Amino acid sequence: MSTDNLELLDKIQYPEDLRQLPVEQLPELCAELRQDIVKELSVNPGHLASSLGVVELTVAMHYTLNTPYDRIVWDVGHQAYGHKILTGRKDQFYTNRKLGGIRPFPSPKESEYDTFTCGHASNSISVALGMAVAAHKNNEPDRHVVAVIGDGAMSGGLAFEGLNNVSSSPNDLLIILNDNDMSIDRAVGGMEKYLLNLDTNATYNRLRDRASKWLHSKGYLNDDRRKGLIRLNNAIKSALAHQQNIFEGMNIRYFGPFDGNDVVELVRILNQLKDMRGPKLLHLHTVKGKGYKPAEEAATIWHAPGKFDPDTGERLTGDTSQQPLRYQDVFGRTLVELAKQNPKIVGVTPAMPTGCSLDIMMHEMPDRAFDVGIAEGHAVTFSAGMAKDGLLPFCNIYSAFAQRAYDNIVHDAAILNLPLVLCFDRAGLVGEDGATHHGVLDIAALRPVPNLTLCSPMDECELRRMMYTAQLPDKGTVVIRYPRGRGVRRDDWQCALEEIPVGKGRCIREGDDVAVLSYGPIGNDVEKAIEQLKAEGCTTSVAHYDMRFCKPLDEELLQNIAAKFKRIITIEDAQRTGGFGSAVLEWMSDNDKPVKVVRMGIPDRFIEHGTVPELHHIAGIDVEAIKAEITKG
Amino acid sequence: MSTDNLELLDKIQYPEDLRQLPVEQLPELCAELRQDIVKELSVNPGHLASSLGVVELTVAMHYTLNTPYDRIVWDVGHQAYGHKILTGRKDQFYTNRKLGGIRPFPSPKESEYDTFTCGHASNSISVALGMAVAAHKNNEPDRHVVAVIGDGAMSGGLAFEGLNNVSSSPNDLLIILNDNDMSIDRAVGGMEKYLLNLDTNATYNRLRDRASKWLHSKGYLNDDRRKGLIRLNNAIKSALAHQQNIFEGMNIRYFGPFDGNDVVELVRILNQLKDMRGPKLLHLHTVKGKGYKPAEEAATIWHAPGKFDPDTGERLTGDTSQQPLRYQDVFGRTLVELAKQNPKIVGVTPAMPTGCSLDIMMHEMPDRAFDVGIAEGHAVTFSAGMAKDGLLPFCNIYSAFAQRAYDNIVHDAAILNLPLVLCFDRAGLVGEDGATHHGVLDIAALRPVPNLTLCSPMDECELRRMMYTAQLPDKGTVVIRYPRGRGVRRDDWQCALEEIPVGKGRCIREGDDVAVLSYGPIGNDVEKAIEQLKAEGCTTSVAHYDMRFCKPLDEELLQNIAAKFKRIITIEDAQRTGGFGSAVLEWMSDNDKPVKVVRMGIPDRFIEHGTVPELHHIAGIDVEAIKAEITKG
Repeated sequence: MSTDNLELLDKIQYPEDLRQLPVEQLPELCAELRQDIVKELSVNPGHLASSLGVVELTVAMHYTLNTPYDRIVWDVGHQAYGHKILTGRKDQFYTNRKLGGIRPFPSPKESEYDTFTCGHASNSISVALGMAVAAHKNNEPDRHVVAVIGDGAMSGGLAFEGLNNVSSSPNDLLIILNDNDMSIDRAVGGMEKYLLNLDTNATYNRLRDRASKWLHSKGYLNDDRRKGLIRLNNAIKSALAHQQNIFEGMNIRYFGPFDGNDVVELVRILNQLKDMRGPKLLHLHTVKGKGYKPAEEAATIWHAPGKFDPDTGERLTGDTSQQPLRYQDVFGRTLVELAKQNPKIVGVTPAMPTGCSLDIMMHEMPDRAFDVGIAEGHAVTFSAGMAKDGLLPFCNIYSAFAQRAYDNIVHDAAILNLPLVLCFDRAGLVGEDGATHHGVLDIAALRPVPNLTLCSPMDECELRRMMYTAQLPDKGTVVIRYPRGRGVRRDDWQCALEEIPVGKGRCIREGDDVAVLSYGPIGNDVEKAIEQLKAEGCTTSVAHYDMRFCKPLDEELLQNIAAKFKRIITIEDAQRTGGFGSAVLEWMSDNDKPVKVVRMGIPDRFIEHGTVPELHHIAGIDVEAIKAEITKG
Repeated sequence: MSTDNLELLDKIQYPEDLRQLPVEQLPELCAELRQDIVKELSVNPGHLASSLGVVELTVAMHYTLNTPYDRIVWDVGHQAYGHKILTGRKDQFYTNRKLGGIRPFPSPKESEYDTFTCGHASNSISVALGMAVAAHKNNEPDRHVVAVIGDGAMSGGLAFEGLNNVSSSPNDLLIILNDNDMSIDRAVGGMEKYLLNLDTNATYNRLRDRASKWLHSKGYLNDDRRKGLIRLNNAIKSALAHQQNIFEGMNIRYFGPFDGNDVVELVRILNQLKDMRGPKLLHLHTVKGKGYKPAEEAATIWHAPGKFDPDTGERLTGDTSQQPLRYQDVFGRTLVELAKQNPKIVGVTPAMPTGCSLDIMMHEMPDRAFDVGIAEGHAVTFSAGMAKDGLLPFCNIYSAFAQRAYDNIVHDAAILNLPLVLCFDRAGLVGEDGATHHGVLDIAALRPVPNLTLCSPMDECELRRMMYTAQLPDKGTVVIRYPRGRGVRRDDWQCALEEIPVGKGRCIREGDDVAVLSYGPIGNDVEKAIEQLKAEGCTTSVAHYDMRFCKPLDEELLQNIAAKFKRIITIEDAQRTGGFGSAVLEWMSDNDKPVKVVRMGIPDRFIEHGTVPELHHIAGIDVEAIKAEITKG
């Protein structure tokens, strides 16, 4: 692992270079590519295990397909590091995920080899079907379109909707099912069992594969002979009697399972399949973390391991014992505390048990925590069903992914105002994961939904109090948003669990000249800004209110604020259009308060990747920006 | 059909009355129930065909299950009229869908027999799974939970996410798949073909059915014998070799297909299945419109036929030749006009070709129009894939259902600002379909999404111009919202197709005292209000601006308005929280304009059903309310 001898990889800038290699050299290239990924990621953290698993597939696709004319649609870009390195970004790869560097996930804004946005799982089949249909309509029937989807992403409803439509319109789509027996944590649910069973039906596949090889060698696999082939296929099926493969049942021809880490075999298969007319699915088995022992053995930990020593596999986590807990751990530990007191409480996560720390509950109370797989809509509606019949679910979803459950929140939770708690982790700008992962729309999107209670804690204790409050009787549907990363307290995070009156804010600091109204942990930056201004000799007397609730607003507090101040500043870690600040502005307007409201928030554009402080600066919501706004008045 | 002799039905107020009947009388009861539904709907329009199809299933479920303790979760409430009549609402059924009358879809707010909200398709499995899991956790293992889902709803991703999780937790859920070979128009896609194929695998099902009967008769079907049964099942499977049913593959036991219109047989089957432990799926075939010949023959037309003569089957549509076209028809006809000029244009609808009039294009250009089934997320993402590769999709979705595609709009369209046009039909209060169907969140939910252009036409010509504009080069993702129902023009709807500069509003009427800024067709009510005030001798000089675009706003026009008026009124047919009015308010605030902004819109609560004028009155956005607001100033 310590050698830097990347003889073959050094020759390759673009797939056309790759295609010059004889097929026998591809295993060596794969080894080098893997080595490069491990080395780069050991110093510049990123998503390791999934990218290692698809090294052979990546090489085989770019080797056999005419990219970028041919389209490869990745489902979730975690796995696409090899793809980036082979498509002109080898030399910039060290900038991966850094501000101004290459993006965390493939993006057409970055490379013509990146065909689509792929930050949220399960969209590849629909996207690629659109492209495959477009190829037909645009008279480019020679364009190959390939969707690469993991078994985890296959649990998302969108993937099924795509599959369900694949056979509706003429197209030659190839779906590659990258089956590594897990999504981020582990695959969940029936589809996984189904795929497992498929493997046992090998006779039929072997037989058909052999027939197909023979037909190909005879040149029978062109379009006008297709009908004959279908008939043959059906005949093979009949011979095996009662075979009913879901994909075949949907008129998608099924091939597999094959070893997805055998690059020579993959090249052979792809060359056979790629020109076959009609939609088809190739089922591959790959090993997440393949070729790097520590990652093979613990793929969940090595999903995104942080810095590590590539030789020993030691993860260089640094000493975090003196740092505050992460918000997610405060959630996870508090939920268990609450669940011990309230037998109605259950926990639900769509495939993020370690990401949101529901794994703590899964460990301590396995029968009360549900990982439903990548299925945000189901997570909310399933929770709503439980809530309707007397349980009290805490459903934890990353804010950006909760966009997928928007209608479930409206139709299945809010209309009946069911008692359930939606915890939006990763709310606000999340940093290196970039535009697709920032959780910045939830406030504005949910504010117009009747019945909902929306709140956000300024620190860990407030998060605990909000969680405690939300599970008390008659609170209806409550959304608690909090950010990625660590809190601001140390040993005193585990405060007493006390009720916060719903819709009540609090005064953090009295003042006379200007009032800052904050929503969520960004209130701590407001405090920093005020302290810094004081230290710098600024004489403006600044009041600070932590509003806690964006809906309902604390009208009594707003009355007092409006009576005292001519100018107020609102701040939130979210889009400023329609957000918390707009809620305050609407109230001031509706109540005829002649108060100037300066709304600080994220401007009306997509923010790319970088560290959270860098992005807060770019968005104009960091300490400097707050200071500037305070002193402007 | 003309007799009013409902001898059996007259005795039944609640399911407990039904359960007193001997099973032999159920066919007669079904005939009476069917007759009652036809009669009631002939004078008070509603959803006919689907309710007729499930008469036997409805009777059989309430006969064999202990409702309301047992839970029936309907998927889409169209079909639940029989259920309503049998559960205490027979005498109020004539108020169905009317203001203050019984609701268009089952609702727990109305009856304890209505277990959940069911206005949007595909949620039943997730909901019922939640209830079935809750029954276990609450120590009520004797509670039966049944989800009734149509084959149309089965194409929704949420249904698949539910199915995929059914076997994850201990539960005894029964899923009844009501397979009538169509959703509202017709079933689409692979799942339908799959279900069709399943029927041919009858041998296995017959064999298992017989085995199960035998086991039941021997009392083997209780919990501790379950493992033995599963082994037997597997043995039968093995004997039949290679059977791979998707449901069985997901560990959901599959039974069927059976005739869902044979009530005696249904009672027998449900009695057998209901106490079986573990998740199971019962596949029934029913005939949409069953028992009423005109509806059997044309189920799409008779989905919601309006008033009709029950004896002759003549639909009493009235003479609409003098009325303006419906907005949906202006969309459908204009789209074909545009598509003839622009070969890149394609049309997409999730299962609403007749509802949104895409059927016009499907008829004239069948290869350029796609009905993707009930799959709103896929509709948008598939469109985005086509847009990425050079086509220009017009994707038409009812505003309320577009809530399901929220993330698809953000992640798959807006981030890349792909050239696609989202037409939101049924935007605003829709009338009799009630709370689940009002399209009142789209403005506020989409306003914070960067890149999007949001617009709404004041009349049919404006709709045409907006559609024309949206398909011109470099317009990115455009959302056009327009309401259910008819426009305001007559013969002159087919105006020339001209570009509207993006983000440009227009002055409808000059004035000096107060300005009304409207968004969308509600501008016509503003005109009415102003005209009425003038006729009544009001001397207030009212200006009226049709802003056309909610995003981007016409800043030049707003500058002029702010310079002239101290008080402006905004109005929209949508939630006022965060909506168009808030956009105007934000702009005035950001630009330090000392203008009083009165925002008219729907208040922060769910509005129930009634006629559109009734609901506009209740929401405070009708002509009277506008007049009151204008004269208040």
